[in-house]
Amino acid sequence: MIGYRRSDRMERKIYLSNTDIEEAVSLYLERLEPCIRNTAIEKIDIREAKGRVTAKPIFARTSSPNHNAAAMDGIMVIASKTYSASEANPVILNKGSDFEYVNTGHVITEPYDSVIMIEDIVDLGSDQVKIMVQASPWQHIRPIGEDIVAGEMILPENHQIRPMDIGAVLSGGRTEIEVYEKIKVGIMPTGNEITDRYDDLPKGKLFDTNSWTFRAIVEDWGGIAERISPVEDEYDKLKTALLDLAQRNHVVVVNAGSSAGSKDFTAKLIEELGELVLHGIAIKPGKPTILGIVKGKPVIGVPGYPGSAFLVFEEVVGPVIKKLQHMRMQLAQEVKATVSRRMVSTLKYREYIRVKLGKVGDKLIATPLNRGAGVTMALVKADGLMVIPRNSEGYETGDEVRVTLTNDMSVIENTIVSIGSHDLIMDLIGSILGRNGRSLSSAHVGSMGGIMAIKRGEAHIAPIHLLDENTGEYNKTYIEKYLGQERAVLVKGVRREQGFMVAKGNPKNIRTIEDLAREDISFVNRQKGSGTRILTDYLLNRHQIEGKNISGYDRDMTTHMAVAAAVESGTADVGVGVYSAAKVMGLDFISIGYEDYDFAVPEKYLNTEMLRAFIEVLNSEEFKSILKDLGGYGL
Amino acid sequence: MIGYRRSDRMERKIYLSNTDIEEAVSLYLERLEPCIRNTAIEKIDIREAKGRVTAKPIFARTSSPNHNAAAMDGIMVIASKTYSASEANPVILNKGSDFEYVNTGHVITEPYDSVIMIEDIVDLGSDQVKIMVQASPWQHIRPIGEDIVAGEMILPENHQIRPMDIGAVLSGGRTEIEVYEKIKVGIMPTGNEITDRYDDLPKGKLFDTNSWTFRAIVEDWGGIAERISPVEDEYDKLKTALLDLAQRNHVVVVNAGSSAGSKDFTAKLIEELGELVLHGIAIKPGKPTILGIVKGKPVIGVPGYPGSAFLVFEEVVGPVIKKLQHMRMQLAQEVKATVSRRMVSTLKYREYIRVKLGKVGDKLIATPLNRGAGVTMALVKADGLMVIPRNSEGYETGDEVRVTLTNDMSVIENTIVSIGSHDLIMDLIGSILGRNGRSLSSAHVGSMGGIMAIKRGEAHIAPIHLLDENTGEYNKTYIEKYLGQERAVLVKGVRREQGFMVAKGNPKNIRTIEDLAREDISFVNRQKGSGTRILTDYLLNRHQIEGKNISGYDRDMTTHMAVAAAVESGTADVGVGVYSAAKVMGLDFISIGYEDYDFAVPEKYLNTEMLRAFIEVLNSEEFKSILKDLGGYGL
Repeated sequence: MIGYRRSDRMERKIYLSNTDIEEAVSLYLERLEPCIRNTAIEKIDIREAKGRVTAKPIFARTSSPNHNAAAMDGIMVIASKTYSASEANPVILNKGSDFEYVNTGHVITEPYDSVIMIEDIVDLGSDQVKIMVQASPWQHIRPIGEDIVAGEMILPENHQIRPMDIGAVLSGGRTEIEVYEKIKVGIMPTGNEITDRYDDLPKGKLFDTNSWTFRAIVEDWGGIAERISPVEDEYDKLKTALLDLAQRNHVVVVNAGSSAGSKDFTAKLIEELGELVLHGIAIKPGKPTILGIVKGKPVIGVPGYPGSAFLVFEEVVGPVIKKLQHMRMQLAQEVKATVSRRMVSTLKYREYIRVKLGKVGDKLIATPLNRGAGVTMALVKADGLMVIPRNSEGYETGDEVRVTLTNDMSVIENTIVSIGSHDLIMDLIGSILGRNGRSLSSAHVGSMGGIMAIKRGEAHIAPIHLLDENTGEYNKTYIEKYLGQERAVLVKGVRREQGFMVAKGNPKNIRTIEDLAREDISFVNRQKGSGTRILTDYLLNRHQIEGKNISGYDRDMTTHMAVAAAVESGTADVGVGVYSAAKVMGLDFISIGYEDYDFAVPEKYLNTEMLRAFIEVLNSEEFKSILKDLGGYGL
Repeated sequence: MIGYRRSDRMERKIYLSNTDIEEAVSLYLERLEPCIRNTAIEKIDIREAKGRVTAKPIFARTSSPNHNAAAMDGIMVIASKTYSASEANPVILNKGSDFEYVNTGHVITEPYDSVIMIEDIVDLGSDQVKIMVQASPWQHIRPIGEDIVAGEMILPENHQIRPMDIGAVLSGGRTEIEVYEKIKVGIMPTGNEITDRYDDLPKGKLFDTNSWTFRAIVEDWGGIAERISPVEDEYDKLKTALLDLAQRNHVVVVNAGSSAGSKDFTAKLIEELGELVLHGIAIKPGKPTILGIVKGKPVIGVPGYPGSAFLVFEEVVGPVIKKLQHMRMQLAQEVKATVSRRMVSTLKYREYIRVKLGKVGDKLIATPLNRGAGVTMALVKADGLMVIPRNSEGYETGDEVRVTLTNDMSVIENTIVSIGSHDLIMDLIGSILGRNGRSLSSAHVGSMGGIMAIKRGEAHIAPIHLLDENTGEYNKTYIEKYLGQERAVLVKGVRREQGFMVAKGNPKNIRTIEDLAREDISFVNRQKGSGTRILTDYLLNRHQIEGKNISGYDRDMTTHMAVAAAVESGTADVGVGVYSAAKVMGLDFISIGYEDYDFAVPEKYLNTEMLRAFIEVLNSEEFKSILKDLGGYGL
């Protein structure tokens, strides 16, 4: 452990261990053996026991059925009285002495020992029937205990109760059963910058979001979550809160405060109050995870970034909570998919990458979601989790990989994979498609990125707005040039207005492309390959303005909204983007003109049900009215 | 519709339709369109919204982060002041004018526009640092809106909310969201024979079990179940209850009363009160399902047998409840498996068969569970559901089939598949194995059945107790004869006492094998191929008694417990079985002698972790003490 001087004289603990995740978890669970043995057992009613785990085997008290019962509608008879029956010599039976009517489920009473189906008797009236086939003893009778026999084990111990188990235990005449208590999990968000008032967000603050996600996951795992309000980064406050939660709960999760930053007290706290089992796991994201024991209870420090937080909660906190409840570890569903692009990984960690899956043609394509930016939305949009093992350098395009599903396969199979330029309308179209069980997954990589995705067979459609400087025409020539071999066609989309987005009231009086090069103006750009960047460069070129003379030309964003946000926050004075983005962010907009936002679609997908549904939305009255409300669009 | 006279003059409706299940469900959902449109929308807090379905898209209100934030621990600087820095020409920066310390997440304030990592600075003391690399603008800074941009669509409509969605919506500064209301499902068990008092079961009654299973399933689907006590089979009572439930709920499920039996009023009731959409679906089990509409609400008649009830609830009621809540239909997870035996099916129906899955060697083997008997336990023990399509005659041994999983694959992969003779100890061993995440699946097909299962590669172990009449030895010669080629070995199990099970006090004074042939004695036998049957036949042979002279010789049961239950209920006077079964059922026991209950195991499995764990349990002190408590066993 090393420290160094700084103004506030806090020590930094920089070196973390780099233990394999399996090793870390199994070491920790071993150390937690006494806690696991301490999980209390309680008696509850089986009817309220869904999801609970049996602490003892459950044996049937009574047999089901507890009587010999008719298995068919018909008559119950004494078999020996029917032995002479045949087509040639029918036997006549009299109600009361030779037979009684029974329906399925009815008790077979003495002296009857056989059932003849209603279809096999002839009703002669006057309470007489005729039969032409003999009945063997016990035919069409459900014997006592056919379903469950008294004393039979219905459920073993350590079994998580499902709906059908409830019926089975009741069939065996049992109501009270013994189960492990529900595990209580204390959830403690920390950090001065974290707030749980969601009506207003002062600058520099972040909403507390992880703790509510954790709470929902704990409920899914059958536990009870106690979430407290965010605790400030003060040692004593943290200490009080931690001891308090450890008192009332079986497990405590401390969120953030787990890295090696100056205010990261969690490891220190655990060291003071109990035992620091491990600090640092060889996973990415999630490395600075802390495993400790305080007052005999597991205390886990989970990193603050949403991507790390979610992963560590599922992969590290999960096994602990499940083990304390004596639940089995479930294997997540895995699928095989083809990696759509090269993914480089460090040898030092096991890396977890959220991927979007798309059934494009007959291949399941895994496309990695941003590793850095947009982490929260990556969690929402991901269909699966891909692992690059430690000591692996990653995957090459086209490699087959295993992906753990985090979305339902039926959703994935009904998803239109759209890769290309970003526009607000893509989300709106997706939302409408959702009504009929379809989805639209839209990745924003710019127009040229979309063209390349179609070329690689990763996408069903690519939204593009690519200006051909020679012809002044949009999109058509690009498809011919890059996608001729793929036999892609152009589906006409919308016309949309591009322009300068500037602060409300246009305080810097920006009017023309020449203004971008002014000394007092800072610009925010779009990434290379995006249609808007091509448009910007085309305009700069025509006016012979060089990028290096524009302040902020190299600061690029991947969406219209991100550019608008930069302008809105005042870190840039101007950016190029669409009217709808400016409107949503409350910015002023100086029009440059209309462009064509269309879709490149391989011919082979054009007549699929999914694409037809997509085009139907484009042509719908509802969609036209949405465009009108947004403003800045024409059809 | 045909009727016929009987004593109580009730009519029977015998002919049902035989509609394909897909056709039936889609026809019904079409007719329910108005109900689906009527599902109300309510505003709730996202923090309480897990599992709910969005009725509108959810857009971010604020950006996250709402400020430019440090992405690393270090110092924030003005990039332009660092441009001259190099190894040769370090730049000295002064705190306050040139830099400030920041931790990850902290706000970047003006005039700073770049972050240098703590690792890349040299602390000179006196609030000065030295840098040797230039910083580019906006490096190591998370820009405003990097995660979520105000106005961005976070969730589309018709999206079922998962834990990570909760965090994302909060990140966007939203708490209140609009979701579809929870669907209320009225559950109405019917039948004079059904009781919901579980402390006592009068003869001829059955516990109401289905309704509680239904209730748990409805909760799993996010609905609210209102279950009422069983309603007697009286037209007016049923009518009142049905109208009452339809008043308060979105859907009503009437259990039983759906077949063509004399007391089956459901279809008639629906016809009187509303519209009978369909009666009869081409599935097995589940044919007499009823689909109706009463007071504009779906009313579904579900058959009474647990196997049919569960299947129809999942396959028919499920789509209705999910559609009303605007949920997507999820595809269940499917696996490919090899059918272990021939399964014949009728061409008329689509047949659903519950199967046990076992990973034996590298094959996943699907073994059908009883189609008739033991339905409730089949639901509990099943790992999957196999479908034989309509117009198919079934499958041949070795065919590859698709099985929908109803159990977790991790459980299946850790399951020892045991097929053979039945003994109570198998369940107890399984329960102990469960503590370490293992399972034992034990199918009872008798000793010879077990030998054949090993031969076909369906099982890891076969419990057997086979007496060689020539040598008087148990098991060894059978393994040599039948499993020589499979290189199976004998794992010694327990010695157990076989004998006559008779009613308490032995009222008929049964003492010897000769007593079985007495005229006043009714016997209950075990199935052919079971070790107990072989023992019985061996004893009869030795005393030159023929089976045909024993009343009940042809009535056979597949387990010791079933034989004991028959004796206990008085439908038989005597059966042969093990001491522990007699003891559990409170019977008297007349010993015949001890036999060897051992395990046939293919050599290749002997050293697997699973088998080692199994043998460990056999040798454990805990197991020995259980045997002592049960009585009738030696080791």
